[in-house]
This record gives sequence, structure tokens and C-alpha cells, in this order.
Amino acid sequence: MGDDISLLDFWVSPFGMRVRLALAEKGLCYQFIEESLMTTERSPLLLKMNPVHKKIPVLIHRGRPICESVNIVQYIDEFWNDRSPLLPRDPYQRANARFWADFIDKKVYSSMSGIWNNKGEGLDELKKDFIETFKVIEEGALGNKPYLGGESFGFVDICLIPFTCIFMACEKYGDLSIQEELPGIAAWAKRCRERESVSKVLPEPSQVYDVVCQARKLQGID
Amino acid sequence: MGDDISLLDFWVSPFGMRVRLALAEKGLCYQFIEESLMTTERSPLLLKMNPVHKKIPVLIHRGRPICESVNIVQYIDEFWNDRSPLLPRDPYQRANARFWADFIDKKVYSSMSGIWNNKGEGLDELKKDFIETFKVIEEGALGNKPYLGGESFGFVDICLIPFTCIFMACEKYGDLSIQEELPGIAAWAKRCRERESVSKVLPEPSQVYDVVCQARKLQGID
Repeated sequence: MGDDISLLDFWVSPFGMRVRLALAEKGLCYQFIEESLMTTERSPLLLKMNPVHKKIPVLIHRGRPICESVNIVQYIDEFWNDRSPLLPRDPYQRANARFWADFIDKKVYSSMSGIWNNKGEGLDELKKDFIETFKVIEEGALGNKPYLGGESFGFVDICLIPFTCIFMACEKYGDLSIQEELPGIAAWAKRCRERESVSKVLPEPSQVYDVVCQARKLQGID
Repeated sequence: MGDDISLLDFWVSPFGMRVRLALAEKGLCYQFIEESLMTTERSPLLLKMNPVHKKIPVLIHRGRPICESVNIVQYIDEFWNDRSPLLPRDPYQRANARFWADFIDKKVYSSMSGIWNNKGEGLDELKKDFIETFKVIEEGALGNKPYLGGESFGFVDICLIPFTCIFMACEKYGDLSIQEELPGIAAWAKRCRERESVSKVLPEPSQVYDVVCQARKLQGID
């Protein structure tokens, strides 16, 4: 048991992957408790641990729940502050990192789901929104640096990299090429994928693509 | 000049008030730069300092901008960490505080603006949403404690208290009584108002009510 950590999560959730990445970076072992999101029913444990939002991921540490993925990643960094720092130390750099995590939370998922849920209408607008969102990150947060946090893999990379698993679905249903539209983001994603924690935690894009296909069928789009 | 702090802000913004409260709690002096939100035009300084969101408040410290109010309050707490702590020290309590700040950001403003922008349609639903949002805070974050952070005024109180300036407008346009619907929140707001920083920073509810009336006229609702 050691640290007494459980994680209520669903394997394909990019928000859950953030927490798994933070735990892997800190070298922590934990019990993974699968909460399927393919049905609308939620487990009694989830309803007890996150009564406000009723959403995964939830980290349960020593019996106490911590909710919301960006919040959980910060908790992990602050509780296990003796190893592998995720946020920078300098207050200004920390504020910068939190700014980008917040931007990602506000913009990225909606700009992607618009594309993979599209029914053929308004696709040009959806593509424009998706590409503009990632361009802001490419130019504002990445620039000429290897990682979103600067010289080393960290907090902002953890917040964004899980979404790159859905790029294949966006390329297919958006009829676009990430490599052509967002070469900096494509190179950054490849760089992150070479990291041990990322390669272990993230599923193959084809697995995520299969889930998106299933979800579209369930919703009657395809 | 001392600490070399400027704040790009608009006097009636609850998000700007959060930053002014944090600066007051830390006893910091700063230059207030008014950015009027009563026109759609934005100043060159704001566009330069917050090119991503183009929104106030922006804290400019030693020439560098920090954006997004919750992020700014955390920066202020981390940079001036030698006095009047705003967030608790314990990692679990910090995660709890950030959870509620996030909940407030996601729910409170939209649940209130629904009411003061209403045109008479669907008011029952809007009132229900507003009261339920604050009930979650009253029961989950406040409980039997004097402040949202526990025994002392802190981060979560700073995030929420500015919105209580708009209660008068919500009561008038929502035909409801905060005292009757949310007695715990009403008592907490009164307690906070007695604090020096809050009484100095927050405008009178009647001033905010006047602005809401003007805004409704500008939008052609009244």
C-alpha cells in the first residue's frame, strides 16, 4: 500500500491521464479503480468522493478525495515536493504555467470535440477554431523551447499532452494534417512521447480513435 | 514606487476586486490604471499585456504581466509569502481551496448574470440555478465555519466576496431574498464586509446596482 493512493479514472480520459502522468513522474504506486464512462450510471464510490461534479478523475489519498485534474496535479506536486518538481519554483514562472493550464482547460477540449462530433455542418469554422487554439499555444507557450514549461517536461506539458491522443480522430473527422497545420505542436508531441512516463501512460492514438468511432455510432452520427 | 506594481482594472469588476483584496491583505501599494468596460474598445496597454484574453484584471509587476484573477491572487500570495497568507499551508487544504475557487469560477458569474440579464422569460429556472449554485457553496465550503477557508478570511473568501456586491441586483431582477434563501451566505457576507480590506475595496451594492440598470438599458432590456 505504501502511500495509500487510489485513482478513480477511466482509461481513455485525457483528464485522468494528466493525473497518471503526474503520479508516474513522481514514481508513485497506486490502485487504479476503473469508472466506465460508456454508460450514464456513476458508481456509489464516485458519487461519494466527488458529490459536486460527479466526474473522474478523483485521487483518493489516505481516504480523502481530491477532484479536478489540474488541481490534483498541483496537489501531487505539493505533497510529494521532495522529488521531480512539476511546477517551476519561481512565482512568475508558476503564474505563467497556471495561466497556460487554465487556457488549455478553457479552450482545448471544446475545440477538439467540435471536430470529432461534427455532422458535416460548419466544419470550416470548427477547424479554424481548433487550429487557432493550438496556434496560440504553439506561439505563446511553446515558442522555440523544447517543452511548454521551458527546458524540461513539466506541469503544462502534463496538462496538454493527453489531448494529442485524439489528434488522429481530429485529422480523420476534420480532414486536416496536424503536421502541416501545427508543425511545432507535432514536434513537441513527438518529443514528449519519447519520455518514459508519457509512453507508458498514454494509449496508442489508434485505440483512442476506435473509442471516438464507437462514440459517434452511439450518438447516431455515423 | 516601492514594489513597482500596476493594476489594469475596471472599478466594478468582481474579478478585479479579487486582486485588489489580495493586494490590500498583503498591505501593498500600487498604481490603479482604469480600463473602462462600458465601451467595446480596449486600450493598447491591455492588448499588449493580455494578448490572449484581452481582459482585465492584469497585474503588472516589475514590467511583467500576470493575467486571470485567481492566478493573480495565487501569484500575490506566493511572491509576498512573508506576510498574511491567503492560501493554507497544508497541501490537502490548499487543494480544497483551489477546488472551491474553480467551482466559483465555473458557476457563480453565469448563474448571476442569467438573473440580471433576464427578460422575464424562464426566470424560475434561472433563480433555481442561482440558488442551487450558492447552496452548494453554503453547504460544501462554508458549513458551520465563519469563513469559506475555515477559521480565518482567505483565498476562497477573496474569490467569492466581490460577487455579493451584485446581490442587490439579483434580488431586484430575480424577485428573491438572499437572507431567506441563503441565510448562511448572507451572514458570511456580512462578516466579511466588517473586515477592513473588504470594506475598503468593495463598492456599495447600490453603486453596482446602478451599473446593472445602465447595462440593461444599453442592451435594450429595460
